[in-house]
Amino acid sequence: MSTEERAILVVGIGAGDPDHLTLAAVKAIRRADVFFVVGKGAAKSSLSDLRHRVIEEHAQAPYRVVEIDDPSRDRRAMDRADYTSAVQDWRSRRADLFERTMCEKMSAGETGAFLVWGDPTLYDSTLGVLADIEARGTVSTTVEVVPGVSSVSSLAARHRIPLNQVGRPVHITPARRLSEVGQNDDGDIVVMLDAHESFAQVDGDDVWIYWGAYLGTPDELLVAGPLREVSDRIRQTRTQARARHGWIMDTYLLRIMDPDERTTDEGRDSGRSPS
Amino acid sequence: MSTEERAILVVGIGAGDPDHLTLAAVKAIRRADVFFVVGKGAAKSSLSDLRHRVIEEHAQAPYRVVEIDDPSRDRRAMDRADYTSAVQDWRSRRADLFERTMCEKMSAGETGAFLVWGDPTLYDSTLGVLADIEARGTVSTTVEVVPGVSSVSSLAARHRIPLNQVGRPVHITPARRLSEVGQNDDGDIVVMLDAHESFAQVDGDDVWIYWGAYLGTPDELLVAGPLREVSDRIRQTRTQARARHGWIMDTYLLRIMDPDERTTDEGRDSGRSPS
Repeated sequence: MSTEERAILVVGIGAGDPDHLTLAAVKAIRRADVFFVVGKGAAKSSLSDLRHRVIEEHAQAPYRVVEIDDPSRDRRAMDRADYTSAVQDWRSRRADLFERTMCEKMSAGETGAFLVWGDPTLYDSTLGVLADIEARGTVSTTVEVVPGVSSVSSLAARHRIPLNQVGRPVHITPARRLSEVGQNDDGDIVVMLDAHESFAQVDGDDVWIYWGAYLGTPDELLVAGPLREVSDRIRQTRTQARARHGWIMDTYLLRIMDPDERTTDEGRDSGRSPS
Repeated sequence: MSTEERAILVVGIGAGDPDHLTLAAVKAIRRADVFFVVGKGAAKSSLSDLRHRVIEEHAQAPYRVVEIDDPSRDRRAMDRADYTSAVQDWRSRRADLFERTMCEKMSAGETGAFLVWGDPTLYDSTLGVLADIEARGTVSTTVEVVPGVSSVSSLAARHRIPLNQVGRPVHITPARRLSEVGQNDDGDIVVMLDAHESFAQVDGDDVWIYWGAYLGTPDELLVAGPLREVSDRIRQTRTQARARHGWIMDTYLLRIMDPDERTTDEGRDSGRSPS
């Protein structure tokens, strides 16, 4: 690396359990001179706390922590084109802010780190923002990505199920695209970023849901079962949990069961009581 | 846990880089009395070596290592029903073998561990086999799953790209289902288990490929670019690598580029030269 460059580490730290940090993440954190902690709003301060906790436990002094207040994003309901354009606009303002902060708060030759909840390659905007900054060419950076355990893997691990059925695909989708995804095949569907309990709109006797919130934390909640039977319970659990914590971060897997798998799984569920 | 039970840990160890082990995986490995190392055939002995290396580095003596020879599977080309039935048959013979080995080689009250390459929740049969054994009810087990960094996350991290485009779905599919998946949406497609270079059948000026083999190992290979331009190079690279190593384990992401993203990404590729 030339001393003119800023080395940027984008480090996945897992979905909530501090032990889901990889050895590579620990080593990366030890190398950092500056940590950029991007705020996600007061409501999600627990996630920010995880990052601070990880820094305190693994960072090697001397180091600096720089808080970045996320630009606010237009979160009204909108169609897909408007949604994409709102996200692009937000990303561009984020790029301005990140670039300015990296120039002001770290020197060329230093190493900065963004700690990303879950896996930075899955539904996280940090890599996109850094690519935008690199494309502008104003500040010279080298980016290294340390993958992490995603909330999707954590969900399946806690339910002790594979994400996929034998030989079948898996789809991962933001809730707003759920109606379009996997309609023509027998793959499982993992739903992210569901603010509107979209699972309640899904129909079918053969659909199982594996739901989880605050995965890997002491507040973790798990519910699994036939969607028709547990849908109301999940909605109640969500409402109560959100009232208690002020925020919720949840994800779930929808699985079309084969008739012969169904019996097995009911037996398994009753024995395992994951909820 | 009752002392009548056998505790089984299913531990993801990452896709090839020993530093992709999580702290939770290290702790789980320290708790194990017995490690079950399932053979995947001589051709993939490097993967087995990774497991042995991880055991040697992290296991706490005294411990035992038990090799399990995988039952052979019918791998001829076949239609979907036959394929599923061949896999089910193989899984059932595997369940017999695992169950017998667990009974013979570990005592009730002990802790056994299966170290799984990548993430045990993604295209790995260990959890399915253990669920089958649990459903039989002959031997009492408690299963705990430690998620790992998947080869899918490793691929994206090494290419420094997100798996998904903004607001869009991601599909993960075995190569044999590629023609059915994601045809009706703009999501990215990650292809696993591709023995037949299916990417060469994909058409379109707007398709980018991000390909990787032996991810996280010193033999790692990466190629990225417009599919039409790099398809032949990937085929050559695969052929040469397979001849050299005797086996290949690769995966790739197919992405439909937006016209305005394309220019940016070309610039990025030429600057980053990931291949």
